[in-house]
Amino acid sequence: MEGYYDRYEDSPFFALSNLWILLCAFLVFIMHLGFASIESGLCQRKNTVNILFKNVFIICSGLLLYAVWGFNAMYPSEWLAEGVFAKGSAISGDASANSDLSYGGTGLCQTGWADFIFQAMFAATAATIVSGAVAERVKLTSFMVFAVLLVGFAYPITGGWKWGGGWLDAKGFYDFAGSSVVHAFGGFAALACVIVLGPRRGKYTKDGVKPILPSNMPLASIGAFLLWFGWFGFNGGSVLSADPGSIAYVITTTALGAAAGGLGAMLISWVVLKKPDLSMSLNGILAGLVGITAGADQLSLLGAVIAGGVGGILVVFSVLFLDKVKIDDPVGAISVHGTCGIWGTLAVGLPFLTLPDAGAPLGIQLLGTISIGLFAFVFSFVVFFILKMVMGVRVDEQEEAEGLDVAEHGSPAYTG
Amino acid sequence: MEGYYDRYEDSPFFALSNLWILLCAFLVFIMHLGFASIESGLCQRKNTVNILFKNVFIICSGLLLYAVWGFNAMYPSEWLAEGVFAKGSAISGDASANSDLSYGGTGLCQTGWADFIFQAMFAATAATIVSGAVAERVKLTSFMVFAVLLVGFAYPITGGWKWGGGWLDAKGFYDFAGSSVVHAFGGFAALACVIVLGPRRGKYTKDGVKPILPSNMPLASIGAFLLWFGWFGFNGGSVLSADPGSIAYVITTTALGAAAGGLGAMLISWVVLKKPDLSMSLNGILAGLVGITAGADQLSLLGAVIAGGVGGILVVFSVLFLDKVKIDDPVGAISVHGTCGIWGTLAVGLPFLTLPDAGAPLGIQLLGTISIGLFAFVFSFVVFFILKMVMGVRVDEQEEAEGLDVAEHGSPAYTG
Amino acid sequence: MEGYYDRYEDSPFFALSNLWILLCAFLVFIMHLGFASIESGLCQRKNTVNILFKNVFIICSGLLLYAVWGFNAMYPSEWLAEGVFAKGSAISGDASANSDLSYGGTGLCQTGWADFIFQAMFAATAATIVSGAVAERVKLTSFMVFAVLLVGFAYPITGGWKWGGGWLDAKGFYDFAGSSVVHAFGGFAALACVIVLGPRRGKYTKDGVKPILPSNMPLASIGAFLLWFGWFGFNGGSVLSADPGSIAYVITTTALGAAAGGLGAMLISWVVLKKPDLSMSLNGILAGLVGITAGADQLSLLGAVIAGGVGGILVVFSVLFLDKVKIDDPVGAISVHGTCGIWGTLAVGLPFLTLPDAGAPLGIQLLGTISIGLFAFVFSFVVFFILKMVMGVRVDEQEEAEGLDVAEHGSPAYTG
Repeated sequence: MEGYYDRYEDSPFFALSNLWILLCAFLVFIMHLGFASIESGLCQRKNTVNILFKNVFIICSGLLLYAVWGFNAMYPSEWLAEGVFAKGSAISGDASANSDLSYGGTGLCQTGWADFIFQAMFAATAATIVSGAVAERVKLTSFMVFAVLLVGFAYPITGGWKWGGGWLDAKGFYDFAGSSVVHAFGGFAALACVIVLGPRRGKYTKDGVKPILPSNMPLASIGAFLLWFGWFGFNGGSVLSADPGSIAYVITTTALGAAAGGLGAMLISWVVLKKPDLSMSLNGILAGLVGITAGADQLSLLGAVIAGGVGGILVVFSVLFLDKVKIDDPVGAISVHGTCGIWGTLAVGLPFLTLPDAGAPLGIQLLGTISIGLFAFVFSFVVFFILKMVMGVRVDEQEEAEGLDVAEHGSPAYTG
Repeated sequence: MEGYYDRYEDSPFFALSNLWILLCAFLVFIMHLGFASIESGLCQRKNTVNILFKNVFIICSGLLLYAVWGFNAMYPSEWLAEGVFAKGSAISGDASANSDLSYGGTGLCQTGWADFIFQAMFAATAATIVSGAVAERVKLTSFMVFAVLLVGFAYPITGGWKWGGGWLDAKGFYDFAGSSVVHAFGGFAALACVIVLGPRRGKYTKDGVKPILPSNMPLASIGAFLLWFGWFGFNGGSVLSADPGSIAYVITTTALGAAAGGLGAMLISWVVLKKPDLSMSLNGILAGLVGITAGADQLSLLGAVIAGGVGGILVVFSVLFLDKVKIDDPVGAISVHGTCGIWGTLAVGLPFLTLPDAGAPLGIQLLGTISIGLFAFVFSFVVFFILKMVMGVRVDEQEEAEGLDVAEHGSPAYTG
Repeated sequence: MEGYYDRYEDSPFFALSNLWILLCAFLVFIMHLGFASIESGLCQRKNTVNILFKNVFIICSGLLLYAVWGFNAMYPSEWLAEGVFAKGSAISGDASANSDLSYGGTGLCQTGWADFIFQAMFAATAATIVSGAVAERVKLTSFMVFAVLLVGFAYPITGGWKWGGGWLDAKGFYDFAGSSVVHAFGGFAALACVIVLGPRRGKYTKDGVKPILPSNMPLASIGAFLLWFGWFGFNGGSVLSADPGSIAYVITTTALGAAAGGLGAMLISWVVLKKPDLSMSLNGILAGLVGITAGADQLSLLGAVIAGGVGGILVVFSVLFLDKVKIDDPVGAISVHGTCGIWGTLAVGLPFLTLPDAGAPLGIQLLGTISIGLFAFVFSFVVFFILKMVMGVRVDEQEEAEGLDVAEHGSPAYTG
C-alpha cells in the first residue's frame, strides 16, 4: 500500500482521516460501557453497583491521567532510558501545532487532538480488564489506587516499547491494535491481582468448584455486542488513517475473527460442558476479537477466521483450567485478554495465517508478548501486594457475603 | 442526481464513500443487538438466555456463511439459471482488486471489503426476524439448522433477484434498502415457521386469547431504539456512496417515517386497546421503518410520513388479526416485517407518495413483494416441515413450561 | 481558523462535512435512548413503562413538530418581531435547493437535510429533560400536551434568539452547543413543572427526606454512558462542518470535561454523603458535559477540565439543596441541566478558562442564560398551571401508590 497517500496529497484525505479517528475513538469509548455491562451482567446481583462504580472511575480518571502524563510517556519525544522508559507530561494545548497536517503528516494522518483522544480511550481499557477479574471481593479504594498506577504509569511504559517506537518496535515486533500492548497487558495484570487477592469465598470447596451463576444475561449480552461494535473502532482506527483498502480489510478480518471466535467457543463448550452455553459464547466473541487484534491487517481472510476460531476454543479451555488451579476470575477476563492476547500476537508469526509478504518472526512475537505480559504481571503483583500490606485489598467476610453494593455503597442495584 | 460523481473524479470521494459504507455496516451490526434486546425483552423471563443464544449464533454463523457462499450467490458474476439462481463461492482474498476504485467504480463507490461487510451484516437479519416469531417453544438445534439454510442459501437467491441484477431487477422492481428483500422475506419465513410450529401452550384457550406479558420493557425499549439507530445505516448505506444530497435525504425520510410509525401505532392502539401501549408503540417505530425502507430515496417528505404512519397503524391491526387466527408471534415480527414489508414495497408504487419522476409501477411492486414473500414462505415451510419430521422443531411440554433457559441451557437469565 | 475552508474550495470537504453532521445526528438520536435509560433506571420499578412511553412519544412527536413548524421558526428567513419571534412553517421538500453547497455554503458546510435532521434531534431533548423531573406522578396526557407545546413552540423561540441570529446573538452572547439554549432551557422548564406539580407523596415527611431508591442501576449507567457517547455528536456536530482542528479539539474538551465532572461529583459526594455514590457520579458526568457545552470550542484544555469538574461539584450541592427546599426531582435533571447549564454558559465569560482571543463578556453570558432560563420557566409555569386547572397534571393518590405502569398502561415493566 506504499504510495497510496500520494493520491491524497492535498488536505481532503487529512480531514477524512481525522474524522475517522475521532469516530473510532467514540467506538472505543463505548467499549467501556461494554465492559461495564458484561462484567456486571456476569457477576452476582449484590455486587453490581460496585462494578459499575469502578468502571465509571476508570474511564474518568484514565482520560485525565493520560492527558497529564500517559500520552507523552507513551509517545515520547525523548527517552530517559532509550527505548525503555520516558517521563510523562501534560499534553500541549497548542492549537496551531495540533490542528493541522503538520502534526503527523501523511503517516499519521490526523490532528494531534484526534491522536490523543483515540489513544486515551485505549489506555483506560487496561484497568477495566482487571476490574472484571477482581470483582466481587476487591476493596474499592485499593482498586482505585491500583487502577490509577496501572493506567497512568505502567501502561504507557510497555505501550511505548512498541507504539512509542521503543525497543520492541526496533526489534520488529508487530502488534497492530494491541493483542499484547492492551489485552495481554490487562490480562496478566489481572492474573497477578487475582493471585494476590484470592478466590471468592465458597467458590472452591472440598466438594469441588461451586458455580456462581451470573445475575443478568441480557446485560452481559449487551456488553459483548457493544464490545464487538466498539472493536471496529479499536482495530479500524489503528490504521491511523482512513486509507480505504486498509480500513475496510481490517474491518472484514475483525468481523470474521469475532464470528469465528463466537462459533468456536459455542461448539467446543457445547461438547465439553454438554450444553449450549451463552456466557462461553459471548466470551468466545471477545476471544476471537483479541485473537485477531494483533494481526488484523496482516492475516489472510482464512487466517483471520482461524485466529478468531482458535481464540474461541482456547478461551473455553483456559477458563476451565483456571478454575482447576483455583484462580477465580468471575468474568473470564484473564482467559479472554491474557491467554488469547498471547495467541493473537503469535498468530502474526505463523506464515500460513498471514497475507503474502506480511507477518513478523515468531520468535520476536513471542519475545514481545512475554515481555509485555511479564512486565504487567510483575508490576501488578508488586503494587497490589504492597497495597495488600498497607491498606488491604479485600473486603471482609461479612461484606463479601452481604454484597459490596449495600456494604460499600449503601444502595442495592435493583429494587422493587 | 446524474452527473454528481463527475465532481468527485478523483479519489477523495471514493475514500469518503468507503468510510461511510463501513460506518453503516457498524450500524447494521448493532441492529443485531437491537433484535436480541427487543426479542428477549418482549418474551418471558424464563426463555431469555435461549433467545440471546440464538441471536449470537445467527450473527456469527451468518457472517461466515455469507463469506463462504452467500455474497457471491447474491451478486453473481454468472448465473446458473439466468436471473434466478447462481452458485455461491467464497469471497476472494485478493487485496489489490478489492481495495481500490477499480472494484465498483463511481457507481458502487467503495472497496470490495466494504461492499462485502455491509451486505453481510444485512444477510443475518433475515434469520433474526424468524428468531423472534418462533421464540419460547422452538427446539434450539432445529432452529440453528434452519437459520443456516435460510441465511446461507435462501436469502441470497431472492436477494439476487433484485440486488444481484436478477429477473425482478430487470422488470423494474424497486426496493431501495429491502422492505421486500430483507423484511418481507424474513416476515414470511417467520409466518411459515410459526404455522409449522404452532402456538405457545396456553396462549389460545377456550376462553379466548390469554395475554403472555413481556418480561423486561426497558430491554425491549433499548432494542427498539438501537434498531432505529442502526436503521440509519441500513437505509443510509444503501445509497452505496456518500453522495451528500442522497444520504441526507434518505436519513430524513427514515427518521420521519420512524417517528410517524411510532405515533401512528401509539394513537391507534390507544383507541383500540383503550390504554397507552408501550410495546405497540415500539413495534410502530419498527413498522414505520420497514414502511419507509423500500422507498427511502423515492418518497416525498409527506410520502415518507404517510408510509411510516400507515405502517404504524397496520402493525396494530396485523398483530390483533394474527392473534385472532391463532398465529402466535410473541414479538410481532410477522406483522412488523411481513405486513409492513409488503406495504413499504407497494408505497413506492403510489405516485402521490413519491417525489416527481420517482417511484415504480404498482403492479411490478406487487409482483416483486409477492414473489419474494412467497419464496421465503414456501422455502421455510418445506424446510421447517422436513426438520419437524426428521428431528422435531418443538421442545416438549415440560421444557416449555419450565422455560428453555434452564431446560436447554442449564442456567437462568437472571439470578439473585 | 479563518481561511481554513479555502483549502477545500471544491466539494470533497462539503461531502465530508455533510456526512459528519449526519453521524452527529445519529449520536444525538441515541441520547434519547440515554435519557430513557437513565430516567427509568433512577426511578421506581413501578413507573418504568410510563417513563419509557413518554420518551418514545417525545422523540417521535418532536421530530415531526420540528419538521412542520419548529425548524423554520428557529432559523427564520424573516421575523414577525425582529430577533424575538418568527412564525414556523413546514420544511421545504425541494431536493435541488437542499442537497448541495448552495444551501449553506462553506459557513454551514452541509446539505439542508443534514442541517434539519441534526437540529431536529436536538429539539426533542428539551422535553426529555422535563420528563425525568416530573416522573412518577405526572398525568400522562397532560405531559404529552405540555411536551408538544414546549418542543414545538417554545424551544424554537429561545433557540432563535441565539442560533437563529436573534437578539441574543446580536448582543454577542455565546453558546456553542447549547448549555443555555438546550440545557438551561430544559432545566428551568423542569423546575417550573415540578413546582406546579409538587413532590412525590411520602418523599418529604415530618421526619425529613425519605430517600426513594433507584430501581435499576445498570440501566441508569447504560443511560449515562450513552449520553456521553451521544454528546460527542451533540458538541462535535455543533462545529457545523468537519473542520479537522475544530472537531477534534471540541471532542477533546468534551471528553475531558465529562471525565472531570464524573470525578468531581464522585469525590465531593463521597465526602458529603460518606459513601461512594454511583448515581451522583453518573449525574456528575452529565453535569461535566453540560458544563463544557457552551464553550467546548472556546475553553482551554485546563479550562475544560475546570468547567467540567466544577459542574460535577455543583450538581451534588444542587441536588442536596433542591431536596432541602422540597423540590422533588427524581433524576436530578434540574441540577444537571439547569444549574450546570447556567454554569457552563458563564464559564465562557471567565477569561482564565478560555483560549487566547476566545470567550465572551461575562455580563452578556449572564444576560443570555437568564433570559433563556426565565423564558422557559415562565412559559412552562403558565402552560403547566393552565393544564393543571383544565385537565389536571397529577395522577391520583391511589395510582401513584400502585405505580403508573399498571394504573395507566395496564402492564408492569418486569414480570416473571
